[in-house]
Amino acid sequence: MPTPPFTEYTARLTRELIHTLVAETDEARLAEHVAFIADKLAEAAARPQQVTVADPHRSAGHIPDDITPASSARNPIAPPMLIEWDGDESRCELTLPLQYQGPPGRVHGGIVATMLDHVLGNAANAGGRPRSYTRYLNVSYDAATPVGEPLVVVGRTARHDGRKRFMEGEILCHGEVRVRAEGLWIEPREGLGHRS
Amino acid sequence: MPTPPFTEYTARLTRELIHTLVAETDEARLAEHVAFIADKLAEAAARPQQVTVADPHRSAGHIPDDITPASSARNPIAPPMLIEWDGDESRCELTLPLQYQGPPGRVHGGIVATMLDHVLGNAANAGGRPRSYTRYLNVSYDAATPVGEPLVVVGRTARHDGRKRFMEGEILCHGEVRVRAEGLWIEPREGLGHRS
Repeated sequence: MPTPPFTEYTARLTRELIHTLVAETDEARLAEHVAFIADKLAEAAARPQQVTVADPHRSAGHIPDDITPASSARNPIAPPMLIEWDGDESRCELTLPLQYQGPPGRVHGGIVATMLDHVLGNAANAGGRPRSYTRYLNVSYDAATPVGEPLVVVGRTARHDGRKRFMEGEILCHGEVRVRAEGLWIEPREGLGHRS
Repeated sequence: MPTPPFTEYTARLTRELIHTLVAETDEARLAEHVAFIADKLAEAAARPQQVTVADPHRSAGHIPDDITPASSARNPIAPPMLIEWDGDESRCELTLPLQYQGPPGRVHGGIVATMLDHVLGNAANAGGRPRSYTRYLNVSYDAATPVGEPLVVVGRTARHDGRKRFMEGEILCHGEVRVRAEGLWIEPREGLGHRS
């Protein structure tokens, strides 16, 4: 089910609110922007069924009604990620704003790991394969991943062995590998559901 | 500098907005809750200097004016984390709401990695040591990390060697280790600043 327009619009306004909270240090200007967004939220909430969004987010496909903090259009924590599967590789292009910053100018290491976990997991489960879950994830931060610059996140299967899928991938910026990841995804035994 | 009350209050309302966006599937009820939050945002924005918050977030200490998506009181992406350093170990207790969910009932693997990266990094830089940066982080998902249940995240130095700090830690739930992590943090050479 695609995200309803009112939900997606509200999530977009919430992302704008998050950005102004971390970017604006002048209290008067912050208050002015918060008032502006509050007004738009109230206006949309008064007529939710009449809200439309330009260029609605297309779901990654394998997660129906996605609410994850990595990729969801309705969860303002997520960038959101649009992941494309070409038969060999999952791939996502995105640029992260200031709310994802750790050290100055650089994406927080945990957010870097989140994007890789999500794209490698997407590749592990692509092509209609049964859902699998991360068993381990190793991330190597070879160089900085900048905020505000276009990133490419890719993931693919390195090899598989029964229920085990060994995945690998990287984050590139301006054509250079900045971060590498490798991990193991495991498909739960039939009837067991996922590990708990 | 502690987070100003208006900023922290707005960030709290934004977390509530995020939660309702992922939790509420009925559009009319979602719109009603959005209208309620928009009203509170507008009210606060009209008199920012008169806003107060109960039990303001205490900063982790080593990051002045923290805006990170892992721990910041002002960044609604962050839970926020309150990390305590006891001289040996960094430790954080928290319970994550629905917006951090990956698979049903479980915290997204990337959010798990984010908490570990942040707490291990806090331990690596504790006690007034020069700032260091993650070189690699290996996360082993031994069992599920549930949303909505109390978690404990801990990090400590396993050993150090010159500018290298080998860190380790885990996430516990109900006294059981669910996730283990180990990683290397490196202090940049003097005058070089951080890797870029």
